[in-house]
Amino acid sequence: MTKLQSGIEIPENSDFTLENLPFGVAEVIPGKFAAVTRIGNQVIDLEILEKLGIFSDSAFDFNSVFNKQVLNDFINLGKQAHKVVRKRLQEIFARDAQVDKKLFAAIHSAAIKPFTEVRMVMPVHVTDYTDFYSSIEHATNVGMMFRDPKNAILPNWRHLPVGYHGRASSIVVSGTNIHRPLGQTLPAGAEIPVFGPSKMLDFELEMAFVVGKSTGLGDRVKAENAEDYIFGFLLFNDLSARDIQSWEYVPLGPFLSKNFGSVVSPWIVTLEALEPFRTEGPVQDPEVLPYLKTEGKRNFDINLEVAIKTSNNDENVVCRSNFRHMYWNICQQLAHHTINGCNINTGDLYASGTISGPDPGSYGSMLELTWRGTKPITLKDGTERKFINDLDTLSMRGFSEKDGIRVGFGECITQILPAKP
Amino acid sequence: MTKLQSGIEIPENSDFTLENLPFGVAEVIPGKFAAVTRIGNQVIDLEILEKLGIFSDSAFDFNSVFNKQVLNDFINLGKQAHKVVRKRLQEIFARDAQVDKKLFAAIHSAAIKPFTEVRMVMPVHVTDYTDFYSSIEHATNVGMMFRDPKNAILPNWRHLPVGYHGRASSIVVSGTNIHRPLGQTLPAGAEIPVFGPSKMLDFELEMAFVVGKSTGLGDRVKAENAEDYIFGFLLFNDLSARDIQSWEYVPLGPFLSKNFGSVVSPWIVTLEALEPFRTEGPVQDPEVLPYLKTEGKRNFDINLEVAIKTSNNDENVVCRSNFRHMYWNICQQLAHHTINGCNINTGDLYASGTISGPDPGSYGSMLELTWRGTKPITLKDGTERKFINDLDTLSMRGFSEKDGIRVGFGECITQILPAKP
Repeated sequence: MTKLQSGIEIPENSDFTLENLPFGVAEVIPGKFAAVTRIGNQVIDLEILEKLGIFSDSAFDFNSVFNKQVLNDFINLGKQAHKVVRKRLQEIFARDAQVDKKLFAAIHSAAIKPFTEVRMVMPVHVTDYTDFYSSIEHATNVGMMFRDPKNAILPNWRHLPVGYHGRASSIVVSGTNIHRPLGQTLPAGAEIPVFGPSKMLDFELEMAFVVGKSTGLGDRVKAENAEDYIFGFLLFNDLSARDIQSWEYVPLGPFLSKNFGSVVSPWIVTLEALEPFRTEGPVQDPEVLPYLKTEGKRNFDINLEVAIKTSNNDENVVCRSNFRHMYWNICQQLAHHTINGCNINTGDLYASGTISGPDPGSYGSMLELTWRGTKPITLKDGTERKFINDLDTLSMRGFSEKDGIRVGFGECITQILPAKP
Repeated sequence: MTKLQSGIEIPENSDFTLENLPFGVAEVIPGKFAAVTRIGNQVIDLEILEKLGIFSDSAFDFNSVFNKQVLNDFINLGKQAHKVVRKRLQEIFARDAQVDKKLFAAIHSAAIKPFTEVRMVMPVHVTDYTDFYSSIEHATNVGMMFRDPKNAILPNWRHLPVGYHGRASSIVVSGTNIHRPLGQTLPAGAEIPVFGPSKMLDFELEMAFVVGKSTGLGDRVKAENAEDYIFGFLLFNDLSARDIQSWEYVPLGPFLSKNFGSVVSPWIVTLEALEPFRTEGPVQDPEVLPYLKTEGKRNFDINLEVAIKTSNNDENVVCRSNFRHMYWNICQQLAHHTINGCNINTGDLYASGTISGPDPGSYGSMLELTWRGTKPITLKDGTERKFINDLDTLSMRGFSEKDGIRVGFGECITQILPAKP
């Protein structure tokens, strides 16, 4: 693989190379939204490119999809359409591109803006949202803390990708700040719950895939074909109030402890852009049922990290993990989700669950990093954290790198604001 | 309250009186959808009434909402708009209505059709779906069967309306048939799951309310104002595969055991139409936290029943229950759901959970009616049921009646088809 040379400057270590070309939606001028991609520090307006005729010799009608406030219609055009757009972008923004002078000037004056001059918005209307629980290290850690340390992994866990439905309405884009939630919690030793702001607010480092093709009720997606239904990935911060969770979650699962806000990166990186970073997943033992069997490299080597920024702007990286650790892969997740005939839609979001690695520095939540608050983390400013404080800013980052080629997600950030009175 | 006299014939025991006027969407001619209401056995096309000028002296623009494939836009106009429509319908369809002769002829020739001549479709685009667990009799029965009979009710249950997120995509309208789901189950005594069609397919008798007003992330709906956010009610059949459920649900709740299909009635009965049938709920002990306190009559006296129709067309009523039994009321459910700032949207659906009453004939699921299959029910044709067989048709009905006035939901039906190979 030869690294593509871009005509737009790409700073060293930029996530946004010519190999990446992720998709998002920006408010390009106040009140005007458009589908965009990014190269280096420049955001590129796809609606304007389309109007300039860049995509006109393709079989797809991009005219009515790039001017929407979400990418759903574009995603729904299908993988061939996404390929066409990425290929054309790689052609016209190559360093040695043969672009007509007038067109070149028009592109550069109208379609390209520094990323600091636009506001990225929620890239997709989330039609349904499911959260899996697919990291064996995370499930083991949680099982050890909350259930039986000797039988940390529950009997069903190695047989199926455990998952649950979550709230679509409260999934918001990076940069949206979230108030600490109020709720019921049961103090240690008490029999009656108390009410107030959560005292154990946590992040969960996750990735989520966006579905790009719908099925009908009763249809099943086979594991071997599942990637045909997947458009791309986002970073996903599944904010969690641990004290609310432990009081509410038996027997029907997490609810208000999760649905007060989840944060996604503004950029969806396509499956195609992540192709070079495929890798094998962990060995699955016992063997899975036939409908869950997959072959080949179905995991992705994506470096992940979480930083807590304090009000003095110190950045404290508290977790370094990798998406390759996932025990259950995305094909298995989608095959399982539809084995009963559950229908999926373009715009559905499927999150991985917390992505913890094997060593303690790779645990994907404060719950695990501080072992339920028993091992606080000391930050650069000398303060300690068991969980997340008001005014802390959480930043998640993710990127793949191989043979000098980098493809990344940028940042997924949110600041925790005090509980509303 | 004096019973309204209709100019359209209303058969005895019809759910569709002039006091009811529920809302739905019908395919009125092939390929053409319109918002409709129903009086007796006649479906009334609201789009045509609007075009005939029936609603023209109101402050609302109904022009762009009655021609949609779902009611969301109409619902979003707000309660005042719904009142205007209901009031005008009661005026023009009153027995002694003073309607211009030409207009009368136009209405009757163009806007009115027998209900058998239209196809009712899903009345609302479901934006998010939550299922509560708010019947104390149901929670007690389940707790006795699956957990500790002496501590059937879990510690959190009387302090908060337990609920969980469900799947929006697979909620379908009455008349849609559902294939028996495939899935993993753990046979008694086994350690390794098996794969195949569910052997314990069940219904759950529920009602669901439709939200009619959105909030922003971080907002809370107070219990005392919650009804301002509620448009109306549907019948809701929360189909459940008990064997899949018991294997998958720990620790994150029901998932594939529920999301293969849930069925709603085509008619949404407004909160306004149900006003005369308000009643007190059960006494809540211990006292609930302040944010969950409500005053006055917040429950509704709605008679509910479930019948199993066998292939010889026998109808076997297996359950007679009532919505008034709910321990947690709809205001408490919505106040709880938003206490953490979770945002709600017009089109959200909130189901009650199984509505069981105190006596065994009022249990709202086969699981409870046959006590986990230990007490099979004998049907009219001599066959036994522990759960639901292939080709059984499930029919749910609900109506309120007081002072000779009846308001009902019609039928919510679905046939269980064999598992797809």
